Amino acid sequence: MGHGRKLTVLVDSVKKLIRRDDYKHVARILKKVHAADIAHVLANLRNTERVRLIQVLSEVDLPVAAATISELGLDLGVELLHIIPDHLLGPILQEMEPDDAALFVSSLEPEKAQKVLSQMRTEDSESVRDLLQYEAKTAGRIMNSEVFALDQDLTVAESIQTIQLRRDAAVHFYLYVIDGEGHLAGVLSLKQLLLNRPETPLRKVMRTNVISVYAETDQEEVARQVAKYNLLAIPVVDAESRLIGIITVDDVIDVIKDEATEDIFYLAGVEADDHTYSPVWSSIRKRIPWLTAYLFIGVLTAWVISLFRGTLDQFVILALFMPMVGGMGGNSGTQTMTVAVRGIGVGELTPENRRSFIWKELRGGICNGLVLGLLAGLLAGALQFAWHGEYFIGPIMFVAMWLNISLAALWGSLIPICFRALKIDPALASGIFVATLNDILGFSIFLGLGTLLLIVSRT
Amino acid sequence: MGHGRKLTVLVDSVKKLIRRDDYKHVARILKKVHAADIAHVLANLRNTERVRLIQVLSEVDLPVAAATISELGLDLGVELLHIIPDHLLGPILQEMEPDDAALFVSSLEPEKAQKVLSQMRTEDSESVRDLLQYEAKTAGRIMNSEVFALDQDLTVAESIQTIQLRRDAAVHFYLYVIDGEGHLAGVLSLKQLLLNRPETPLRKVMRTNVISVYAETDQEEVARQVAKYNLLAIPVVDAESRLIGIITVDDVIDVIKDEATEDIFYLAGVEADDHTYSPVWSSIRKRIPWLTAYLFIGVLTAWVISLFRGTLDQFVILALFMPMVGGMGGNSGTQTMTVAVRGIGVGELTPENRRSFIWKELRGGICNGLVLGLLAGLLAGALQFAWHGEYFIGPIMFVAMWLNISLAALWGSLIPICFRALKIDPALASGIFVATLNDILGFSIFLGLGTLLLIVSRT
Repeated sequence: MGHGRKLTVLVDSVKKLIRRDDYKHVARILKKVHAADIAHVLANLRNTERVRLIQVLSEVDLPVAAATISELGLDLGVELLHIIPDHLLGPILQEMEPDDAALFVSSLEPEKAQKVLSQMRTEDSESVRDLLQYEAKTAGRIMNSEVFALDQDLTVAESIQTIQLRRDAAVHFYLYVIDGEGHLAGVLSLKQLLLNRPETPLRKVMRTNVISVYAETDQEEVARQVAKYNLLAIPVVDAESRLIGIITVDDVIDVIKDEATEDIFYLAGVEADDHTYSPVWSSIRKRIPWLTAYLFIGVLTAWVISLFRGTLDQFVILALFMPMVGGMGGNSGTQTMTVAVRGIGVGELTPENRRSFIWKELRGGICNGLVLGLLAGLLAGALQFAWHGEYFIGPIMFVAMWLNISLAALWGSLIPICFRALKIDPALASGIFVATLNDILGFSIFLGLGTLLLIVSRT
Repeated sequence: MGHGRKLTVLVDSVKKLIRRDDYKHVARILKKVHAADIAHVLANLRNTERVRLIQVLSEVDLPVAAATISELGLDLGVELLHIIPDHLLGPILQEMEPDDAALFVSSLEPEKAQKVLSQMRTEDSESVRDLLQYEAKTAGRIMNSEVFALDQDLTVAESIQTIQLRRDAAVHFYLYVIDGEGHLAGVLSLKQLLLNRPETPLRKVMRTNVISVYAETDQEEVARQVAKYNLLAIPVVDAESRLIGIITVDDVIDVIKDEATEDIFYLAGVEADDHTYSPVWSSIRKRIPWLTAYLFIGVLTAWVISLFRGTLDQFVILALFMPMVGGMGGNSGTQTMTVAVRGIGVGELTPENRRSFIWKELRGGICNGLVLGLLAGLLAGALQFAWHGEYFIGPIMFVAMWLNISLAALWGSLIPICFRALKIDPALASGIFVATLNDILGFSIFLGLGTLLLIVSRT
């Protein structure tokens, strides 16, 4: 039975038991299931059922309840935290990884956040408060601050002993080594402990050239480093190179997925937290600002076109082909803009190659514009000829399309690069600007050429 | 000095040395640099310089040359493999991880691929041929088939000995355990070897409920499993549950990034392998088919509008607001479609919740349509009043906008879900269909309402 099928069966049987109000049986089934799968089940229930299920899970196995909410992701998780009874909040959040707890706490209203923190064990709430000192979306916010590190003067045998004594420590794969002052000195793998003689000191085994990030480093940059160097974890250091935390690759994967979603969504005019599961009101609230922005571009465009009312009165045929001119400029601009935004996102488009990228896109635009302009001119001319026995729209279309596509390539590449240089997210802001420029100049060129023809034909 | 700055300095100094033709010095500098950074340098050089640098690197350190080309990524890597001397191809590819080598070999022309394979050591070319038996983008193609596994009857002490004897084996973090017939029986971590008594047999220590994938599993599904369960590696088994390979998280990160790029690019009408570095001709060649498809939508739209030529002749004002009507439908349809496509991609939008998703989007569309329709109607009416002292465009715009945005939400959610059910990539195909439906129905509604008004006003 495939994985998807198994999950469907699980969701169905849980739903059936819930209809019979048999939550104890549900909890028994879910005890054998991974938290990520419980989260999937939860996402497919009604709000009242979710609250009830979390309550039952909390009684049976608090860590599993906490892990499930972590796996739910931010928006559904916060939604749930808002509706589950207050007395459960502290116990659940203190069972979470501190970085997950910090994420949720920072999404609650300040009073509620304070209340929840006061319900937690002091040590747990302090870890969370520590992380909350760093800005959102930085290494400091997503790191695990409970670091297990070995002193560089320990031998291999002593290190193994230390690991055996601290069974619960977060030892995964890399062992970070520090000097007497807590500065990050080196790294080695568990395997290297097994391959070296017991009496060897760590300083002789470890690799000293460790790739690390600062607590203030943007999480996107953290993800780029981990992906680029194929790391399983990356250490976080303070300004004095003291080891203060570790970010593991599973958190990095979440960042990569979230940042990609953010790019995709911003380019489409959707907020990054607009999920399949999001309630309808939150989707509406989040999309209306984008649509309103586009509406004003539409009004601006209508105004530009209105300047050519006289020409349109004479040549209604121009109106037929306006959507084609606007659409093609928009589409080719979007192509270039998307390649630029993603290139910036994955670190391919850098200050070193941005000039050659713009130049490449411009050449590409000129070529594509020529080909598509010819095709569009021929098609438009042929249609006009079939309808009216004239074909003056052909050359107008050819020139307008060529110019439009060439210009679209220019600002489709320029605008994201400029926003990046200004430290504004290019995915967020480029679309509106590219669309505005494209519509205003695109229609001006097309209708301007039509006006020119009108003037020439009159003289 | 920040990471980005360091790379810029590296690129600059390499370029300077290359201008002096001092490749030996370059090779000496690059020996201390990670292959991913050498790849970055290479990407910023001219083709002739790249070939020369790879030649020098191959003489100095063949594995580094191979790793660098792996890190370059598929399109630049293949481009380079096409221009470096033939006698270097075999030696370089045999130094690569078999999955990387398979990726490159599968991208070469068949004759060249055969030639390259014949240049490689037999054992290496056989590993590559083995992987090439699986379809592209499946687990089998990206797995590491050199599996290190331990027999379940070994004790902890014997396991440690085995690891010490096979120092070069790919032992990373998880130790996979097999039974006498090679079936995957369990998994444990290196740390667990250290925490258990030497005489304990592995079968008592290992976890038996191992998450695994089949060689035929799509790489996107592999990535979803690894991300969902926070794994560092996932074992690949054949139909009889025999362990045949391992996929590590760094390969999964590449898959996640590539699939996200593919979604972003397909939604924008760009081929997935259209990178910042791609040569201009390949970009042109890859974008023209998309633009041509959009051009034909434009022609179809022009034809639809032509059916209303009479109305446009009477009410030129309609032409002014056509781009607004088309644009708003397009934008809101794109919003819904993007949320659906990404939801399908990350596994949030499943057969269980697709009906409630469509229903939610439809309700959201009706609400957004009402708000935006009112706003657009008021603005359009006001503009017309300012220009001509009439405002009939207001109610027309209101109704058309409301209907358009509601319908866009309907097919923006329906179309990707249908494509998914038909096992067609929703990111690839949805855009064209949503745009076509939107334009044809959008303009028909708007101009149809105008025609209705014309008829009413005449009687």
